[in-house]
Amino acid sequence: MATVKLLTDAEAEAIPAVKAVFDDIRATRKSDFVNNFWRGITNDPALLARTWSDLKAVLGGETTLGPMVQQMIYIAVSVANGCEYCIHSHTAAARAAGMSDAQYGELLSIIGLAAQTNHLVSAMQLPVDREFLIES
Amino acid sequence: MATVKLLTDAEAEAIPAVKAVFDDIRATRKSDFVNNFWRGITNDPALLARTWSDLKAVLGGETTLGPMVQQMIYIAVSVANGCEYCIHSHTAAARAAGMSDAQYGELLSIIGLAAQTNHLVSAMQLPVDREFLIES
Amino acid sequence: MATVKLLTDAEAEAIPAVKAVFDDIRATRKSDFVNNFWRGITNDPALLARTWSDLKAVLGGETTLGPMVQQMIYIAVSVANGCEYCIHSHTAAARAAGMSDAQYGELLSIIGLAAQTNHLVSAMQLPVDREFLIES
Amino acid sequence: MATVKLLTDAEAEAIPAVKAVFDDIRATRKSDFVNNFWRGITNDPALLARTWSDLKAVLGGETTLGPMVQQMIYIAVSVANGCEYCIHSHTAAARAAGMSDAQYGELLSIIGLAAQTNHLVSAMQLPVDREFLIES
Amino acid sequence: MATVKLLTDAEAEAIPAVKAVFDDIRATRKSDFVNNFWRGITNDPALLARTWSDLKAVLGGETTLGPMVQQMIYIAVSVANGCEYCIHSHTAAARAAGMSDAQYGELLSIIGLAAQTNHLVSAMQLPVDREFLIES
Amino acid sequence: MATVKLLTDAEAEAIPAVKAVFDDIRATRKSDFVNNFWRGITNDPALLARTWSDLKAVLGGETTLGPMVQQMIYIAVSVANGCEYCIHSHTAAARAAGMSDAQYGELLSIIGLAAQTNHLVSAMQLPVDREFLIES
Repeated sequence: MATVKLLTDAEAEAIPAVKAVFDDIRATRKSDFVNNFWRGITNDPALLARTWSDLKAVLGGETTLGPMVQQMIYIAVSVANGCEYCIHSHTAAARAAGMSDAQYGELLSIIGLAAQTNHLVSAMQLPVDREFLIES
Repeated sequence: MATVKLLTDAEAEAIPAVKAVFDDIRATRKSDFVNNFWRGITNDPALLARTWSDLKAVLGGETTLGPMVQQMIYIAVSVANGCEYCIHSHTAAARAAGMSDAQYGELLSIIGLAAQTNHLVSAMQLPVDREFLIES
Repeated sequence: MATVKLLTDAEAEAIPAVKAVFDDIRATRKSDFVNNFWRGITNDPALLARTWSDLKAVLGGETTLGPMVQQMIYIAVSVANGCEYCIHSHTAAARAAGMSDAQYGELLSIIGLAAQTNHLVSAMQLPVDREFLIES
Repeated sequence: MATVKLLTDAEAEAIPAVKAVFDDIRATRKSDFVNNFWRGITNDPALLARTWSDLKAVLGGETTLGPMVQQMIYIAVSVANGCEYCIHSHTAAARAAGMSDAQYGELLSIIGLAAQTNHLVSAMQLPVDREFLIES
Repeated sequence: MATVKLLTDAEAEAIPAVKAVFDDIRATRKSDFVNNFWRGITNDPALLARTWSDLKAVLGGETTLGPMVQQMIYIAVSVANGCEYCIHSHTAAARAAGMSDAQYGELLSIIGLAAQTNHLVSAMQLPVDREFLIES
Repeated sequence: MATVKLLTDAEAEAIPAVKAVFDDIRATRKSDFVNNFWRGITNDPALLARTWSDLKAVLGGETTLGPMVQQMIYIAVSVANGCEYCIHSHTAAARAAGMSDAQYGELLSIIGLAAQTNHLVSAMQLPVDREFLIES
């Protein structure tokens, strides 16, 4: 159960600032489905509008990585931050964007390895090698 | 300063189990440079051998994602876990694997966006949409 | 399901050190309701007593911030640490202390923004500006 | 040392999209000082513009909490996420907004207490009390 | 619900690389029970084999700490990382290895205290005392 | 550099509530050395007194685990939370309590392994096996 009310379509329609964003989500995604993230965040229409605008700019704009890799990076961050909802929604999106079982296995392998070395490095408090630093 | 002694080449040479791994790192990477991570972890030769073996299997094996994307996913996890050393070493590796400034900007944008929505979802404790779940 | 047994009122009454804390919780809060946190932590009565004493000193003592702001800060930490139980209990407490929908929206906005810039800064490993440092 | 080049004023002036944001930061804050966060993020001008726009909307818009409380919540998230740069910059901002030593002590006390109970709850995996849940 | 299919015994038997690991898990643990972690990770047989091999080496090899303390350290990390599944499975394992209620209470007390001082130190950004550093 | 002033001995002596705690730290530890954690937290004498009282109760009281294991658990939490200061101070304390190089290697191995499986489980969102749950 959420800490906020999840707006139904009828409730969302009744608030112009919310309706405008929901309409754009549907038009952009060419789908009628509006997921719970947007239904919860509607309680602050300005936050809803800003977040959708950011997401559209990042995931819906020109990309040099492509949608599948974008979603895999999104999964990696969400796993490290332990966000159940985000892991499910972005794993679904990565699969919809073409992620194969082999690519998912490779993603899991890198996430597990990175977590392991992140913690080992943290425990040992290693100084960064000069070779890794850029001139700035 | 580290919590462990970082072995010099001479000290590493003197321990056969460590020397074997250092030799393989140099042969695999075709470079004489052995970074501090391996010099610190030598204090437990079995951990050194296991970690190198895992890393070689994941990052040095067959890949459907390619080395640059692998390193970008590694960065994403390391950023969320706040590992300074790992961020520097894998950002250097991603650049060496061809990551352009535009691709790095896209990576930063996704990491920032994911962190934002991860925290918003955590605050609202949203239920996962049925549409995102797979049959299992 | 918890990793510990949650004590019923009857079981709590039967352990003098637990009964004393439960009585004080009820007297301090002027309510008969004792939430699961206290029912779980009873398995170590000394930990129960210490934690209640700390919580009473921090949230129940003199305050320059006021109960609502205290609870909002508590939510912010709990969100970043991903503690579902804590998010629900302290969001309920903040609302009981007067947090409006507008204030909650502002809280969410700051949490989301902070998470975003925290991760961007972590990715870029930025040096702290001299202007931010105090003499110490 | 950062993973990105920190732009000098001269370099920032030379990129119109960056110059526009720097000018707005200076005008909004009525100060010539532009901190390292903005100098690093310039490497992706679109990310720079989006982030500044979000920050201005959240921290520079109408507020029901006031600038000092906003900065204290920002600190709370940054501490839990372990962002050194963010902790320094937002502690400086909270002090500039009037945070007293007593208020800072109260902030630290809440952060420490929340971290403690967050981890205890995580260890015990407690179910959320029905009383904390809202109708949604 | 998981993001991956959890293999039944029949499905696991049908994949030789998976069957080999499941057989070894059962032989090593002298039990027919194979928990969900291994049933999920089967989707990438190489990752399954590597992870089981690492776990067997660390938890099943020579130990100077003993199985109970090993599991308590495992719990501590899992709590800080907020992994529900891991907390449940390793708390069960610690109890099976002899952890008493008093020892569990002591574990919880240390975890709570460490979280509190970790966050206080993070907030204050304290310099490490020279006395704590080793020569390296 | 810290966000707070670190009190010198002379400054600490001048505040009775701080002097009392410093005297007790020195008497309890049978050493004149008072580390920076206590010198920073002095800015809120009530927080100082509460934190010292908690720490003395947990680490200085009766223990079923012993001082070395207590410190190793403390390290595990501090590593996962990424607290540099805490990692250094508690690694020094564990060594002072008798932790051998072999035991430290075992600690690192468990921390690395736990981090890896924590993240894999988080990515796969695995349901907890019924066998791990206790009656509550």
